[in-house]
Amino acid sequence: MTMGRRGARILDCISSPRDLHLLSAQELEILADEIRQQIVDTTSKNGGHVASSLGAVEIILACHSVLDAPKDKLIFDVGHQSYAHKLVTGRLDAFGTLRKHGGLSGFPKPSESPYDTHPSGHASDSLSVASGFAKAKLLQGGDERIVAIIGDAALAGGMAFEALNYIGSQQLPMVIILNDNEMSISRNVGALMRHLGNIRSTAGYRTARDLIQERMESGGRMSNAFVEFGRRVKESTKHMFIPESMIYEQLGIVCTPPINGNDISEVREMLELLLPMECPVLMHVVTKKGAGFKPAEDDPVRFHGTGPYNPLTGEAYPKPASGPKYTSVFGDALAKEAEADERIVAITAAMEDGTGLKAFHDAFPDRFIDVGIAEEQAVGMASGLAAAGMKPVVALYSTFMQRAFDQTIADVALPDRNVVFALDRAGLVGDDGPTHHGAFDISYLRLIPHMRILCPSDADELASALHTALSLGGPVALRYPRGCAPAPVQGEAQMLDVGRARQVREGADAAILAWGRAVGAAVAAADALASEGIQASVFDMRWAKPLDEAAVRAAAATGAVVTVEEGSVIGGAGSGVLELLADADLTPRVRTMGLPDEFAMQGDTDLLLEDAHLDAASIVLSVKDIL
Amino acid sequence: MTMGRRGARILDCISSPRDLHLLSAQELEILADEIRQQIVDTTSKNGGHVASSLGAVEIILACHSVLDAPKDKLIFDVGHQSYAHKLVTGRLDAFGTLRKHGGLSGFPKPSESPYDTHPSGHASDSLSVASGFAKAKLLQGGDERIVAIIGDAALAGGMAFEALNYIGSQQLPMVIILNDNEMSISRNVGALMRHLGNIRSTAGYRTARDLIQERMESGGRMSNAFVEFGRRVKESTKHMFIPESMIYEQLGIVCTPPINGNDISEVREMLELLLPMECPVLMHVVTKKGAGFKPAEDDPVRFHGTGPYNPLTGEAYPKPASGPKYTSVFGDALAKEAEADERIVAITAAMEDGTGLKAFHDAFPDRFIDVGIAEEQAVGMASGLAAAGMKPVVALYSTFMQRAFDQTIADVALPDRNVVFALDRAGLVGDDGPTHHGAFDISYLRLIPHMRILCPSDADELASALHTALSLGGPVALRYPRGCAPAPVQGEAQMLDVGRARQVREGADAAILAWGRAVGAAVAAADALASEGIQASVFDMRWAKPLDEAAVRAAAATGAVVTVEEGSVIGGAGSGVLELLADADLTPRVRTMGLPDEFAMQGDTDLLLEDAHLDAASIVLSVKDIL
Repeated sequence: MTMGRRGARILDCISSPRDLHLLSAQELEILADEIRQQIVDTTSKNGGHVASSLGAVEIILACHSVLDAPKDKLIFDVGHQSYAHKLVTGRLDAFGTLRKHGGLSGFPKPSESPYDTHPSGHASDSLSVASGFAKAKLLQGGDERIVAIIGDAALAGGMAFEALNYIGSQQLPMVIILNDNEMSISRNVGALMRHLGNIRSTAGYRTARDLIQERMESGGRMSNAFVEFGRRVKESTKHMFIPESMIYEQLGIVCTPPINGNDISEVREMLELLLPMECPVLMHVVTKKGAGFKPAEDDPVRFHGTGPYNPLTGEAYPKPASGPKYTSVFGDALAKEAEADERIVAITAAMEDGTGLKAFHDAFPDRFIDVGIAEEQAVGMASGLAAAGMKPVVALYSTFMQRAFDQTIADVALPDRNVVFALDRAGLVGDDGPTHHGAFDISYLRLIPHMRILCPSDADELASALHTALSLGGPVALRYPRGCAPAPVQGEAQMLDVGRARQVREGADAAILAWGRAVGAAVAAADALASEGIQASVFDMRWAKPLDEAAVRAAAATGAVVTVEEGSVIGGAGSGVLELLADADLTPRVRTMGLPDEFAMQGDTDLLLEDAHLDAASIVLSVKDIL
Repeated sequence: MTMGRRGARILDCISSPRDLHLLSAQELEILADEIRQQIVDTTSKNGGHVASSLGAVEIILACHSVLDAPKDKLIFDVGHQSYAHKLVTGRLDAFGTLRKHGGLSGFPKPSESPYDTHPSGHASDSLSVASGFAKAKLLQGGDERIVAIIGDAALAGGMAFEALNYIGSQQLPMVIILNDNEMSISRNVGALMRHLGNIRSTAGYRTARDLIQERMESGGRMSNAFVEFGRRVKESTKHMFIPESMIYEQLGIVCTPPINGNDISEVREMLELLLPMECPVLMHVVTKKGAGFKPAEDDPVRFHGTGPYNPLTGEAYPKPASGPKYTSVFGDALAKEAEADERIVAITAAMEDGTGLKAFHDAFPDRFIDVGIAEEQAVGMASGLAAAGMKPVVALYSTFMQRAFDQTIADVALPDRNVVFALDRAGLVGDDGPTHHGAFDISYLRLIPHMRILCPSDADELASALHTALSLGGPVALRYPRGCAPAPVQGEAQMLDVGRARQVREGADAAILAWGRAVGAAVAAADALASEGIQASVFDMRWAKPLDEAAVRAAAATGAVVTVEEGSVIGGAGSGVLELLADADLTPRVRTMGLPDEFAMQGDTDLLLEDAHLDAASIVLSVKDIL
């Protein structure tokens, strides 16, 4: 698959979605092919979310050939499927910069284009946002049309359900395109309506039904109530064969039968039928992930989000690996711990691969739990498991943990339950950008009573942090970055002392307190300073909470303290050091280094670390600044 | 209604739920009456959640007369209905201390009793927790029974849906008692399945159906797809008359017909039928809020949560009011702002009365939005409204705002949308205790880029803070406490300068920086210090973010700075001061005063403030400590 020559393409003539209104059905189909080629061409160089973007090409072209954007609102749910949208909204020329530092975002971004309605980084939010647009339309008397595109997996999120419930009850006018690609990011265990037929044929379900029916017919005390129930059971039997979207009809939302979402004309026709309706309508389209690019069709999981690859074969270009990914280190360590302790269960929210749980799943299928895109359920369920004597490990991306903030406080920390939170992709995540950075976890976890937070700085530290967290009781979070550890695990996992740091460099002129990945930069900075005759001690602090008071006091004794963490500088571990120093009446000069009070951009992580002044050179400057 | 004489009661003989197993149906009914009397007797003195507790008496007695707790698990959703449970689980003698400082919690509390399975403070969490217990049972091969009691309003929360989805797909064994009292805390606009019949008869819904059907019969391109649809439309028509719980059947959960939840025998009989089933079953019971106590039956909204009242008439005992409630000050101010600006809309999550929005609702019914217990939807919808040019004000209790933490970051702050968050009951809430204190908001909002936070210290300040927030653009939060302002609004709302404090006392010996309600204590402390010859300046800081750097520098110049806020001391506004001082290389001695790193207890707010050392006397000591 290669790119057509520039100038020969319809795509090159599209400067705004309006241009699509003029194209024939056949031309739109040609355009779809050109867009596929462009997506493969660019993502094979830049990496990106290939499978879902290829699957959604026809839906997007159909929408823009009918809608009048940006007046009409097209709202994506999980916007990494929006590449075709970017290509027909004036961003073809910039498309080569997709996901690059300073380049086009891999997600919709309102500040990038008026056609981008919402950032759409976290799943299940599109319908709430659409409900706001629809209510505003009613209040303002507007005539804009509102269309949201949501995948089947995202519909399992509680937020989407809350929105549907409200939209249905208020009959807010909008078209909801259910993009049913029969696959979520990982196995979609909890997804709304899968396997319902199977469930209804299980022994338990049928026995329950039979028992209730039997009692119903016995004419006992409750027979009146059961008269009505009898009718219902019959309905219910019929339901066993009713398609899945039926459930939305119960919320007051008209649902269409499934149509082929990779057929532009079919989608257009249905859309033109539904758009004039003054009520919520769910348009069920079935698409194929990776459609049109064989390697992605064959392995949509790998092409969910991928690095650079061979555009002909789909083969990934090997990356020079400095060490194993933190994700695998965690997964291997957890599987090992679970061998020794059968109380350990692992919970993820549709991120089995992303959180490294495959090995665990294979080894302990009963103790592996995937709740779907449902972080609130993941954490609430962990609370119950812990109360019942199990040791749940909730493995999430740091950024998605935000969805379960209240559950972490009210359901886990308040009753002090033994739950381990394993937060992958903490800190800067690189190309996915601001919607996905795990910038805030130290700050928002540190304020929770009973919570302890470990920030391992390499593979050995991560294995030991997990081992320690599982032994402690009460809520404990580990947070570790995306990417590779400097080296593989070298020894046995150790039990770490709670709130005890590890000194890695000695020096009396200044002290650098560092957490997690920042320890490497801190050591490099200390070495650079040493070459200039400045002796700085470095502490791998290990714990963001509780802090090592002795280490902080030792650092304060130098008179110059720099704290470095790959997380929000506001309220972070460095602020904890300031709090401790104030309480102890110690007044060294201090610089707290961390992610500044803004949403970090996308791009190569090393570049982003420089932007945030979290590289060794910046640490050197900070130390000198307060000497 | 008066209490029976001690010793004449069955209730006095109940030392554990086991004792209920021995009672006849008639004795259980007598016990229910005695419990009602006890609840009214105690809550008429202590205040409490009367209506829901009275409504749930029979469900609770039926459960405990069949279950073998604590081995079997009884999990409440919103545990303020659990008074009857407390009375039959060995806590009769302590019941007079209900909700008092050091007394029995008004919610289940695992550390208080082995019969209390979960804290159950925030709605919609019971099913997730129950799913954890059920999964643990399967893994451990146990035979305990698991019963969750959830109200109809709580089922609208996304977390409950996520749990049902998982429970249904995995067929986890449990009985879910849907306590349908046909009333949520306020008008249950979004509740799951209300008014569906009405919706289905609206013009929009019917036109949509007709149009689709017409097209279906036209034999066009999509006629094949529509053949199946034809069958479905017919099913759908039938659905118009199908009871509400049908929706859960679609998730794979067997549902019973509604039975009378205030009839112990009926509930028992059904429970005995359902408990042996090895699959999830939803038992639909209808109860009457306030059942058995006429004043509460007649006005369940007032008796949702009430202060002391006359146990015969239900009349509230008048409280000596020092000023208007902050809640009403906000509500009146918002209604006034909305007169001048028709872009203002108000959003609440089933807390219309609690957030003071009644006046707004009456004046601007179209611009009033109650999404039900669905904070994620409240904030997501606000984002869409703001993007469409409206000015949404999301009014929530501080503690429930935690549910929408991710939405605040990803849907509002990232695209910098004009959303005002009005957080009522920020700080200590008194009798409701640890599940309801608004302890964390300053800390978890401060870390969010683009967010600004106002902490008004009296009624005038609150009106001005709202006025300012509505004028600024971008996300702005106001947080104000439960209870009365020192005085009513005196003048016109002012536009406050962003990040500018207000000096309220001058003094060169020390400086007290205070936020919100703590300003009063700070001034009292300064006055007390002045009588001892110590001159302390006091700043009403107004903004927790951005901070007034000039005020902080002026404070630092005294050499002794005390910060005081009614919020978590970790990561709070005081930490912000420390961050600013460190950046500015200023090293005064500092004491940060706030809520300590633990879950604050229940009871009289003044006592709790003393516990947390946030009273004037403690501030005086802190100042002296660093002089």
